[in-house]
Amino acid sequence: MTTEARPGPRERLLETAAVLSYQQGVGVGIEALCRTAGVSKRSMYQLFDSKDELLATSLERGASAFAASLLPAADDARGHRERVLHVFERLEAQAGAPGFRGCRYLAVQIELKNPDHPASRVARQVKEGLAEFFRAEAVAGGAGSPDLLARQLILVFDGGSARAGIGADHLAGLMTPTVRTLLDAAGMH
Amino acid sequence: MTTEARPGPRERLLETAAVLSYQQGVGVGIEALCRTAGVSKRSMYQLFDSKDELLATSLERGASAFAASLLPAADDARGHRERVLHVFERLEAQAGAPGFRGCRYLAVQIELKNPDHPASRVARQVKEGLAEFFRAEAVAGGAGSPDLLARQLILVFDGGSARAGIGADHLAGLMTPTVRTLLDAAGMH
Repeated sequence: MTTEARPGPRERLLETAAVLSYQQGVGVGIEALCRTAGVSKRSMYQLFDSKDELLATSLERGASAFAASLLPAADDARGHRERVLHVFERLEAQAGAPGFRGCRYLAVQIELKNPDHPASRVARQVKEGLAEFFRAEAVAGGAGSPDLLARQLILVFDGGSARAGIGADHLAGLMTPTVRTLLDAAGMH
Repeated sequence: MTTEARPGPRERLLETAAVLSYQQGVGVGIEALCRTAGVSKRSMYQLFDSKDELLATSLERGASAFAASLLPAADDARGHRERVLHVFERLEAQAGAPGFRGCRYLAVQIELKNPDHPASRVARQVKEGLAEFFRAEAVAGGAGSPDLLARQLILVFDGGSARAGIGADHLAGLMTPTVRTLLDAAGMH
């Protein structure tokens, strides 16, 4: 019989910060974070300089899972249009899952209202990665104005994620026709 | 010589709540609100049941100014396409002004993460008013799928306002071509 080791305090703090900041916002208190993670405040401050650093590190740690949950696989042989549409099909599927509150990397920046906050910097970088994916596909797919198309796609992504996150739209039947229209107008193949 | 009366405590609290919650988020403390408004906490609680009620009332009070800042005048004789585009030209202009942090009615809902909060209810209602404007114009303009077009337009509005609010996009050269493409695809005249 194998026993699974309980994650250490650093791991538990990072996971708790990810979950609670997503559910409750970045204003979640240090007491709540430490209590939920089962870590003393003293230990937390030995592991992280500040709550800001804990939050930023937890966002950074989630970046690869975020990308994996949205982007097509590297060996995905479909065309560029389909690779872009894949992201929006994934977003639509995620929006339909219970507990969805929109893109955490958008919400953090809206909540913090401070582009210099370490967590805002991480969030901005992660979303720039998504915009860069759109731009690269737009170029490779022969879009007339790849920069404009990339701005449009991330705009639709953020708008969709925000509206689904607040429960204003379920996104079903919205993402695909909207993105197709923009891809068509850009002449993307 | 006329003297301008200083606004009363209720007015000062509502204005302060509008300004500080927009700049700092809905987590702004009661102490900061009262101190900035120059009103004692005791007086505040005589005027409002709670900070939630103060916040909700301040959002409600701003609703007509929000609509006036975006919608075409009632006697605006331009066509339906131009009336819709007017909203996005206004958003683009607002996004270029210093201190712009995006649509407050979107931000409040993202920050509160609770659709039953009195301020979320007000915010949702205000944005439903904007969606209703888009739907009415889409119907009057002969859009093939007015419901889809209205969802697309408010999606673009929220996406643009969110991205400009966090400084990720200045919106210049983005709003008008995006909206025109969607209006064209919907066959709206």
